[in-house]
Amino acid sequence: MYEYIKQKAFEANLLLSDYGIAPFTWGNASACDREKRVFAIKPSGVPYDTLTPDHMVVVDFDGNKVDGSLSPSSDTPSHAVLYNAFPDIGGVVHTHSVTAAAFAQAGMPIPALGTTHADFCYGSVPCTRELTREEIETEYEKNTGLVIVEHFRENGIDPNAVPAVLIKSHGPFCWGKDAKTAAYNAAGLEIVADMAYKTFMLNAQQKEISSWLLDKHYLRKHGKNAYYGQKEN
Amino acid sequence: MYEYIKQKAFEANLLLSDYGIAPFTWGNASACDREKRVFAIKPSGVPYDTLTPDHMVVVDFDGNKVDGSLSPSSDTPSHAVLYNAFPDIGGVVHTHSVTAAAFAQAGMPIPALGTTHADFCYGSVPCTRELTREEIETEYEKNTGLVIVEHFRENGIDPNAVPAVLIKSHGPFCWGKDAKTAAYNAAGLEIVADMAYKTFMLNAQQKEISSWLLDKHYLRKHGKNAYYGQKEN
Amino acid sequence: MYEYIKQKAFEANLLLSDYGIAPFTWGNASACDREKRVFAIKPSGVPYDTLTPDHMVVVDFDGNKVDGSLSPSSDTPSHAVLYNAFPDIGGVVHTHSVTAAAFAQAGMPIPALGTTHADFCYGSVPCTRELTREEIETEYEKNTGLVIVEHFRENGIDPNAVPAVLIKSHGPFCWGKDAKTAAYNAAGLEIVADMAYKTFMLNAQQKEISSWLLDKHYLRKHGKNAYYGQKEN
Amino acid sequence: MYEYIKQKAFEANLLLSDYGIAPFTWGNASACDREKRVFAIKPSGVPYDTLTPDHMVVVDFDGNKVDGSLSPSSDTPSHAVLYNAFPDIGGVVHTHSVTAAAFAQAGMPIPALGTTHADFCYGSVPCTRELTREEIETEYEKNTGLVIVEHFRENGIDPNAVPAVLIKSHGPFCWGKDAKTAAYNAAGLEIVADMAYKTFMLNAQQKEISSWLLDKHYLRKHGKNAYYGQKEN
Repeated sequence: MYEYIKQKAFEANLLLSDYGIAPFTWGNASACDREKRVFAIKPSGVPYDTLTPDHMVVVDFDGNKVDGSLSPSSDTPSHAVLYNAFPDIGGVVHTHSVTAAAFAQAGMPIPALGTTHADFCYGSVPCTRELTREEIETEYEKNTGLVIVEHFRENGIDPNAVPAVLIKSHGPFCWGKDAKTAAYNAAGLEIVADMAYKTFMLNAQQKEISSWLLDKHYLRKHGKNAYYGQKEN
Repeated sequence: MYEYIKQKAFEANLLLSDYGIAPFTWGNASACDREKRVFAIKPSGVPYDTLTPDHMVVVDFDGNKVDGSLSPSSDTPSHAVLYNAFPDIGGVVHTHSVTAAAFAQAGMPIPALGTTHADFCYGSVPCTRELTREEIETEYEKNTGLVIVEHFRENGIDPNAVPAVLIKSHGPFCWGKDAKTAAYNAAGLEIVADMAYKTFMLNAQQKEISSWLLDKHYLRKHGKNAYYGQKEN
Repeated sequence: MYEYIKQKAFEANLLLSDYGIAPFTWGNASACDREKRVFAIKPSGVPYDTLTPDHMVVVDFDGNKVDGSLSPSSDTPSHAVLYNAFPDIGGVVHTHSVTAAAFAQAGMPIPALGTTHADFCYGSVPCTRELTREEIETEYEKNTGLVIVEHFRENGIDPNAVPAVLIKSHGPFCWGKDAKTAAYNAAGLEIVADMAYKTFMLNAQQKEISSWLLDKHYLRKHGKNAYYGQKEN
Repeated sequence: MYEYIKQKAFEANLLLSDYGIAPFTWGNASACDREKRVFAIKPSGVPYDTLTPDHMVVVDFDGNKVDGSLSPSSDTPSHAVLYNAFPDIGGVVHTHSVTAAAFAQAGMPIPALGTTHADFCYGSVPCTRELTREEIETEYEKNTGLVIVEHFRENGIDPNAVPAVLIKSHGPFCWGKDAKTAAYNAAGLEIVADMAYKTFMLNAQQKEISSWLLDKHYLRKHGKNAYYGQKEN
């Protein structure tokens, strides 16, 4: 009964590998069914080249396994928190893509320095605070999700418009309307991070783009007045 | 009746993908027929791996669609302006190639720091001014083309000798005698940008090469005294 | 009688090539049999694409050849020293992977700047002292092994928890419970080095992560309380 | 009668493409026959993927064509000068590999910062002086060769031990006992340049390695006491 989301999670996990942003088993993608309040996620520690849709593990929004024979990704509680808190997302992806992770390690957000960024993310990709010792030692993965939600709420950031975040000292989480979009956002993030990295190397003081250029590029691709792409019938 | 330019635009769009300078749908190429005053361009938001020549959309030099069932690239008005203003070009390409875009984000031209640059571009790859808020909010893509033309005219730059430009906060546009050459120039630009980036990291004060070295390399490949390549029969 | 370790050494050498961390013949992997106190290692100077398991050379823990028709890797004495000194390791790998080697050339350890590092290595990847002139001119490869062992002993570093080291002015040696794990660690090291490199470019003063975050990530993947991956039956 | 060197030049040119150090037609390799005092070289401007051995052009040591229907590489006179001046070399390669070219553009030699460099080159890869305006405007390619020879002679550098040079503002020339070795040296140079680049980013003041470490690594691979690789029968 969960074939549909298992297939979607499987395909998104393969995308991570194809995009080159999750070497070895260093990444995971999940796909959710909001009606049933469950999501399918990669099993922990299984290499991408041996994955099948049947390997996907189905978990509810509290992180309890409801289907599958393998253990789910150790990051499953982070995914569960995000599905609970962000009501419109259908897919979540975690990677350690190199340049995005370097920004996370430096504790730096990735500001919108150009239109490539604005095409995919409406403002800075934020960087969370460091987790406390207690948050790390108890329910670490759940707290990783909670610190993301805290950052978005306290700073009034809309997760539908900013589909990516950096966990301080860790790496990115990305999401989207479905798992494939989340994987796309994770790949886009790494490209945008690379571009921002080189921009800062050329000019350490580079400021973000104007709000009107940000609006123009984000809104020509997203929202009701978008005019990029083909009209859907 | 537009098969010829559709085929050329199609092939140039595939080259962007093959060269690795336009991930996802982040780039577009067009090919023009100067006699008919039309050009064929990539449809908006269609992935490279599903493109066929028939997908290409034919547009006149004012940006009005004259053939094709899909919506043309959202950047079509920029292409139209360039075909109008630069009378010798037969192809236009836009990408977000990472290092060239980093220079654009930093608002820096790419000076001719060596012969690799001089082999393909006769002087700096310029960077335009920022568009004004009004230019962004009204006819943005057309104004993107116009700010390129303005920069070339005000600075007396010959678009036949300098086949590339950086749009401030955005990324490169390139062109050439045909679409394939425009795609080649876009790929060459990214390589030259990478080389310039690393040169500036090694020496932030690096100056451009002498005019005689620039002349030597550019003119041995271009113009009536060129001696690079095979004589055409 | 040594087929098993020859096969493992062969496969680990191919992994080095597949991972892209040992161009040409610039790397070598070995696999040991602790009971017999021998290890199989790549022959010297043979390209990866012509290797077969039979090419592997079997050497005892004093570095004397016991099987095989070819000459073993010139780095064989370094491997022998490591097998002698580190009683739990079953595989050793040496590469000149670019970014790890750049840290070695700069004489800098790679501190744990994030969880990607902590997932694979319990603390800094250390950098040894420079070998003395005498150590270089006499039994250089053996002394290369000895300077590693000296560094781990004098600094109280557990080679089971820190499976990698940088030789000052040279490059990395990695190890693991078997040759495949050693090759994996060598690939992981290069990724972590790349991430650390970019982090330092963004923030030259970046400090290492807290001991509790290091503990959390390392121990969720390693040791008796690990909960990453699938339970083995 | 020149099939042998045509075949060798052809294979070396393909290696440049396979190694990824000569995109498009931006590189050339030649192979010489010292008895006949001729060399076979890539034709000018022909893409690697359409090359055949028959396309190779045979030229004497004064740069005059003696066989072949196509025009030789425009860099042919540089090759001729090197074959004339360096009596032991059998192959020459010119590329614009990105990182080596960045050092050339910055006018910086690449010092021996580690053993990867020492394994392949006995000391710094030098950078020539800038050519004068007159040298550029008259017999430019020949003068490019001459400025290399001048640098090696004036600085007492042995071209058999240092098989690579950077032309200021241009890029590398490499050579070797045969064309395949020259191509290998060109690929090794780009790797070593990348490593040196990152080392300087980590420590701008990095000094070169000791003469005894340089001796050890270079001489274990080269010369009569070499012990790297397999004994030839």
